[in-house]
Amino acid sequence: MDQKKRLEKDAIGEIYVPADRYWGAQTQRSLQNFDIGGPTERMPEPLIKAYGYLKKAAATVNFDNGLKKEIGESIIAAADEVISGKLMDHFPLVVWQTGSGTQTNMNVNEVISNRALELLGSPLGSKDPVHPNDHVNMAQSSNDSFPTAMHISAALEINEKLLPAMDKLRKALDSKAKEFKDIVKIGRTHLQDATPLTLGNEFSGYAQQMAYGIERIESALPRLYNLAQGGTAVGTGINTYKGFDVEVANEISKLTGLPFKTAPNKFEALAAHDAIVETSGALNTVAVSLMKIANDIRLLGSGPRCGIGEILLPANEPGSSIMPGKVNPTQCEAVTMVAAQIMGNHTAISVAGSNGHFELNVFKPVLISNLLRSIRLIGDACVSFTDKCVTGIQPNEERIDLLMNQSLMLVTALNPHIGYDKASLIAKTAYKEKTTLKEAAIKLKFLTSEQFDQWVRPQDMLGPK
Amino acid sequence: MDQKKRLEKDAIGEIYVPADRYWGAQTQRSLQNFDIGGPTERMPEPLIKAYGYLKKAAATVNFDNGLKKEIGESIIAAADEVISGKLMDHFPLVVWQTGSGTQTNMNVNEVISNRALELLGSPLGSKDPVHPNDHVNMAQSSNDSFPTAMHISAALEINEKLLPAMDKLRKALDSKAKEFKDIVKIGRTHLQDATPLTLGNEFSGYAQQMAYGIERIESALPRLYNLAQGGTAVGTGINTYKGFDVEVANEISKLTGLPFKTAPNKFEALAAHDAIVETSGALNTVAVSLMKIANDIRLLGSGPRCGIGEILLPANEPGSSIMPGKVNPTQCEAVTMVAAQIMGNHTAISVAGSNGHFELNVFKPVLISNLLRSIRLIGDACVSFTDKCVTGIQPNEERIDLLMNQSLMLVTALNPHIGYDKASLIAKTAYKEKTTLKEAAIKLKFLTSEQFDQWVRPQDMLGPK
Amino acid sequence: MDQKKRLEKDAIGEIYVPADRYWGAQTQRSLQNFDIGGPTERMPEPLIKAYGYLKKAAATVNFDNGLKKEIGESIIAAADEVISGKLMDHFPLVVWQTGSGTQTNMNVNEVISNRALELLGSPLGSKDPVHPNDHVNMAQSSNDSFPTAMHISAALEINEKLLPAMDKLRKALDSKAKEFKDIVKIGRTHLQDATPLTLGNEFSGYAQQMAYGIERIESALPRLYNLAQGGTAVGTGINTYKGFDVEVANEISKLTGLPFKTAPNKFEALAAHDAIVETSGALNTVAVSLMKIANDIRLLGSGPRCGIGEILLPANEPGSSIMPGKVNPTQCEAVTMVAAQIMGNHTAISVAGSNGHFELNVFKPVLISNLLRSIRLIGDACVSFTDKCVTGIQPNEERIDLLMNQSLMLVTALNPHIGYDKASLIAKTAYKEKTTLKEAAIKLKFLTSEQFDQWVRPQDMLGPK
Amino acid sequence: MDQKKRLEKDAIGEIYVPADRYWGAQTQRSLQNFDIGGPTERMPEPLIKAYGYLKKAAATVNFDNGLKKEIGESIIAAADEVISGKLMDHFPLVVWQTGSGTQTNMNVNEVISNRALELLGSPLGSKDPVHPNDHVNMAQSSNDSFPTAMHISAALEINEKLLPAMDKLRKALDSKAKEFKDIVKIGRTHLQDATPLTLGNEFSGYAQQMAYGIERIESALPRLYNLAQGGTAVGTGINTYKGFDVEVANEISKLTGLPFKTAPNKFEALAAHDAIVETSGALNTVAVSLMKIANDIRLLGSGPRCGIGEILLPANEPGSSIMPGKVNPTQCEAVTMVAAQIMGNHTAISVAGSNGHFELNVFKPVLISNLLRSIRLIGDACVSFTDKCVTGIQPNEERIDLLMNQSLMLVTALNPHIGYDKASLIAKTAYKEKTTLKEAAIKLKFLTSEQFDQWVRPQDMLGPK
Repeated sequence: MDQKKRLEKDAIGEIYVPADRYWGAQTQRSLQNFDIGGPTERMPEPLIKAYGYLKKAAATVNFDNGLKKEIGESIIAAADEVISGKLMDHFPLVVWQTGSGTQTNMNVNEVISNRALELLGSPLGSKDPVHPNDHVNMAQSSNDSFPTAMHISAALEINEKLLPAMDKLRKALDSKAKEFKDIVKIGRTHLQDATPLTLGNEFSGYAQQMAYGIERIESALPRLYNLAQGGTAVGTGINTYKGFDVEVANEISKLTGLPFKTAPNKFEALAAHDAIVETSGALNTVAVSLMKIANDIRLLGSGPRCGIGEILLPANEPGSSIMPGKVNPTQCEAVTMVAAQIMGNHTAISVAGSNGHFELNVFKPVLISNLLRSIRLIGDACVSFTDKCVTGIQPNEERIDLLMNQSLMLVTALNPHIGYDKASLIAKTAYKEKTTLKEAAIKLKFLTSEQFDQWVRPQDMLGPK
Repeated sequence: MDQKKRLEKDAIGEIYVPADRYWGAQTQRSLQNFDIGGPTERMPEPLIKAYGYLKKAAATVNFDNGLKKEIGESIIAAADEVISGKLMDHFPLVVWQTGSGTQTNMNVNEVISNRALELLGSPLGSKDPVHPNDHVNMAQSSNDSFPTAMHISAALEINEKLLPAMDKLRKALDSKAKEFKDIVKIGRTHLQDATPLTLGNEFSGYAQQMAYGIERIESALPRLYNLAQGGTAVGTGINTYKGFDVEVANEISKLTGLPFKTAPNKFEALAAHDAIVETSGALNTVAVSLMKIANDIRLLGSGPRCGIGEILLPANEPGSSIMPGKVNPTQCEAVTMVAAQIMGNHTAISVAGSNGHFELNVFKPVLISNLLRSIRLIGDACVSFTDKCVTGIQPNEERIDLLMNQSLMLVTALNPHIGYDKASLIAKTAYKEKTTLKEAAIKLKFLTSEQFDQWVRPQDMLGPK
Repeated sequence: MDQKKRLEKDAIGEIYVPADRYWGAQTQRSLQNFDIGGPTERMPEPLIKAYGYLKKAAATVNFDNGLKKEIGESIIAAADEVISGKLMDHFPLVVWQTGSGTQTNMNVNEVISNRALELLGSPLGSKDPVHPNDHVNMAQSSNDSFPTAMHISAALEINEKLLPAMDKLRKALDSKAKEFKDIVKIGRTHLQDATPLTLGNEFSGYAQQMAYGIERIESALPRLYNLAQGGTAVGTGINTYKGFDVEVANEISKLTGLPFKTAPNKFEALAAHDAIVETSGALNTVAVSLMKIANDIRLLGSGPRCGIGEILLPANEPGSSIMPGKVNPTQCEAVTMVAAQIMGNHTAISVAGSNGHFELNVFKPVLISNLLRSIRLIGDACVSFTDKCVTGIQPNEERIDLLMNQSLMLVTALNPHIGYDKASLIAKTAYKEKTTLKEAAIKLKFLTSEQFDQWVRPQDMLGPK
Repeated sequence: MDQKKRLEKDAIGEIYVPADRYWGAQTQRSLQNFDIGGPTERMPEPLIKAYGYLKKAAATVNFDNGLKKEIGESIIAAADEVISGKLMDHFPLVVWQTGSGTQTNMNVNEVISNRALELLGSPLGSKDPVHPNDHVNMAQSSNDSFPTAMHISAALEINEKLLPAMDKLRKALDSKAKEFKDIVKIGRTHLQDATPLTLGNEFSGYAQQMAYGIERIESALPRLYNLAQGGTAVGTGINTYKGFDVEVANEISKLTGLPFKTAPNKFEALAAHDAIVETSGALNTVAVSLMKIANDIRLLGSGPRCGIGEILLPANEPGSSIMPGKVNPTQCEAVTMVAAQIMGNHTAISVAGSNGHFELNVFKPVLISNLLRSIRLIGDACVSFTDKCVTGIQPNEERIDLLMNQSLMLVTALNPHIGYDKASLIAKTAYKEKTTLKEAAIKLKFLTSEQFDQWVRPQDMLGPK
């Protein structure tokens, strides 16, 4: 690490930073003070990008309030680079820093101001003509900008990645529901054989879960669209100016295409993050749905010879080199592991959300990093599960028929024809003698083979009379 | 236990039940098979009452489908008694039974049929003319009736108890926000002194949390209003008749005054209980809010001499026999304990919700008992907290003024008048010499006492310029 | 509620209590101030009994420090009645009270003093010659006695109920492991057919889980045996006397037969309840084990025709009136529901444990009520599961053989005899043509029927070479 | 991505891999099949290193069972490089893959074999003379090697990083307890003023929590030292040889210096990961302790003027540019955020641990990634908290004295001298007239100033008589 250094300073004093980095003294200090977890624990990229939108919007609004054109434009240009993701190497801070996220706000201010200086031909660290606090952070505080970036990043990730991914899975399940609508199979309750339904019915239930899941996520959005910006240090808006809150929210809305607006109560917006907890609750419900769906699918695909085996999953990787048909349900496994993680992230978020004090909740970084991780993991898992598993699912119709025909539950179809007592005797005989119902019925001479086929029709047992 | 017995029987055989109880063989069998947890673990009362509504509605709809008038009317009369709560002693089963709740459905069928028989002058256990399965359970299955009762009970409890209780607390907090709107006090971020706000501002944040909480609960209701009834055993609706699902939902809606309707997909409605998980997620968010609010209030009330002491809580019980002013924040303690419980119930519900298999989730009793407990506890806690604590909160204005005036944060108000450097020097002097800002300012001769009073006005630091 | 009343008083003033109840003013006040949750939310019985032991032990030790013989003996007699459980109707307070449990300590003091007065022929409420504070609570504080009762009750319930119940289940599983040791069956990994093992192997894994579970619970006991008594109000032991802590712990140890001792640091013992959190963590691990075991057992027993069907579960209640062999795994369902509840209780306990302030954690009632509930539910569930399910499990050997013989995994046994390529071709042929390996092998003329039977012996595939 | 490629193949077919990477076909396939979460979601480094130890140990033991010297030695050399961490760029797989971790085992086999080939001068991908399956994976299966690597990595991280870090914090707290042993201060229960104790007493409680925490972690180790290796695919040990399990555990023990031994029951060791859940439970308890400790410390340090202010925390970064003394408790914030995360990770682990099926739990990657993250975060946080906060804590003695002397709780010291009634009147007068006890006492003429100073001595109120 013989890298070149640059001397920066802040209220505490001077400190060296790597010469090729845009960050400044406060970022460097945080790096040294919070050696917790290493690079994989860095602030999530969507949060940094959201900060890019915020700083750009703030500069735009600040033009009307005294921000010089040249300074503002260079800030906007630098903010655009933050939004593009190309400056990510300049955001080294981990989640485990101050609970207000102040150091990440300063990291953003420092990077944008230094990059703006560079664009204007001034030396890094000169703070003139672009100052990290006076200009990039103008009319803002960490305490309102960090929660604003939390909401922007979560709402963007949900709209751009999560909801499309969930809808992709929903559509794939729905498409399977239609494809399988005439495949009659045995039902199972308590894991015990029950009356029949179609394989399409089962998949329609899964598709409904995803449809509701989308509704659930959308239900949380209204409160996520409320932005804290304008509350500054304690929620009163001191050190900003009238109208800034409304205008900056409008500007962010314009930049992102999402209906952000200023929060009706800024005290709540800084001191509590219930909207994050609420959104995590919706994600937790989706995780619960995914656990059920993926679990069912791997159970339905269990086998090839000694399980349920009613469906065939696509083989994406070697299962067993010698045993054909052994297809491990690896996509289901990834999905259910993701589900467990989201349930855990939700506990972390709930605990963190419950622990604010007075004017500020200082668990902001842990809240947003868990939420963004949950959003990303569910989104990616839905895409992977759809593409690598669901769309390739094939029914094993031979097996489905075999199981259904050997089931004893179908005996109920005989009640109206031969009476409950004889039907019951058929079932008992079949069970005892390990035969099919048909074999038992014929042996007992209660009916003919033709009558059996005519009366015992699973496809007639699929709905109300 | 020398009590009189009555012989009942079911598919497994004969069994004695207490002669003075309406329940029958299947209830008795469950009692003996599930000796887990004892009487405090019984199925919650609101679930039993919901079953009363369901059985009444089903009988009403069944009139048009062959249920004899006399039988149906006696069922309705008995169901009304279940709704009234007066038969609760006849529902002895615990939550820890079969995961479909079948035994509780049978308990309801047995109690209603025996009470109906009694009303008609027939002996208990005779099953004639009112049969628990053929008549009370007509066109129904445990697998659709239990989830229906889950949704009815949760929706009723939410509408009748929870939302009014939350709104009561919201109003009380909002009323305090208005009452305290002119009381300027020091703000605190990171638990450190910050710029001022009003005590009303703080309470307005709490009121906003409760207002959002009500929105959150209401967001979950649409999916809770969807009823599984009509899906019968596996979701297909076998053994019921066309239209029963829609009509019974309408009838239940009429009886309860809530907009219940039949679920669009019955497979989802039996196999998953995501709506319960979702509602629990909303309750979890409310718990998180309550934890913050009650925690802040007890910190604000800490003292009487050695804490923050900005507010005075009502004294409901002896704190210390000798020390006046020691008022333990016991209502806050009850509220925060409830919050912890709700967060735990939510984990139980999430785990249970994620574990269904195929056509049936068999964690129904644990799901609904936790949900109803969470609803009840939050509702009761909101009422208790409002009546015994929030409405009686008084500001300790002398203390509030004292703290604010000794704060160093107010120095920022001097910047425009004497410049940042002199202001900073005043603050440093006051901090070092442990004086007030005013004392330091005058000592340093940067301004007069009158100027200080004129320039340093916390009430001018409460918002944007 | 026309019941007779008695006037009691405390520091706040006079208050009426029911004439036939031993409780006094402070209990009555709590009843009125905390109308949260109703009777099912009362303080758990084992905690009240533990208080009985504590008050008896304290009186015994206090004899040497000035407690008069007559007073002390009447306290001991009344405490014995508390221990016996016969005074439970006199403990009406709910968990949702003050977080120190002070009101329950006063409830105990009031009931014991009034019952002692009655035994001595003095009127209830007279406080003379037996005073609830001066004598029953002598040398104690709520702040040390409540955590002491928490530890006593948890340790007693664990030793008397939980560990024996867990060991009962462990033995039953171990006994099945031995009974099934020669039943060779197909293994399943990823829910896919794998190499064989014995049914006994599977049950030996479950038995090992329970054996470890017992070790885990026992690992937590050393810290649970440390008692807070003697710390009084803040941990210093003010208002008690030297040696009281050690002597009272010894006396409690004598009374209960468990190795209680005084906590090495009383500040920790009042301000934190990490020992409760730790014990709950052990219970959570046991719950996780039970979830796996019960889930496996119901999957193994799924069917009767369309599932795995390798074992037969005892039928305890009617499954289907018409379909023989439909045995719902209701005990497994109760066990897995209990497991979900324990996982939830653990979250509640963790949240509550993390939230103490300074000298006192004020989440004591929610901590101990969840812990005792978890202990009781796991204990009861282990007994029920053992008696009503595990001991009655029978192998379905015919089905086990059928599945194993149709498996393709056995082909690996042919490698040493005919080479990997031919073995692989056999498997592929069998899979493609849906025959057994044997049929395919003979068809391909790679070996004879006799050779197949000689070489493909699942019982030779059960271990290392 | 114009990088050079190399053609590799597996049972499914050919696939290109980057020419400069040691991984092969199966790794590449997993990379393409599991596009979930991106690089920050990769398998944790300690797990990969543990695999290095395992592969080295296996090769060493395999020498006696036919592994050729040259091959084995090259494997060992490559494994040493894995252990050293220098090959980390060759392990690109994410956690969200197959739940058995098979793909990571294959990644290890591929990297080690290719690096061994390179060391022997053979081309990458040639599989000759060193084959990933036949040699690197010799006598092993993913199903036993992955859980073995889980236990090795967790035990190493606990012993090498976590326990020393926790002990460092414990010692620092204990050292503060001693340093502050004579600083008498007001106690607080229910956040209300209570009887005095020393600042050292408070820190001794924290130190005790950490001491117990170390005991808790150590309690879980015995079960973590049991290794699954030798169970191979389903726990029977098929495809390995007798004694391999014992010998490989011994060899791993030798290499790591930790008392690993072969698991007594391999079926449990593959099918359940209760030891991971148990260890996470211990970490959860430590997180709960840290939450209490860090929360207390920031409350004690709140101020500088308007909070408790009894201690001064070191200032590591700018708090407020203008306000001296505003030191945000940022280290406490990082610690409490870490605590929330660990509580969440514990839920993820508990859910994942509860969800195994038959012979294999397929939530292995999510289990170990959460556990290792919890270990790392607690360890790092303990070090950071110690170095950047705890060791620099200073008492604010002036403030401590001020608060204590204005407290009303000290009045209890007067009871023996002037009686309860007069003492009580003093307290009430002081409270009402907002004076000190001393002022009130003298005003009421119950005693002299000298008597007050002689009788009211907080240092005499610190323990039992």
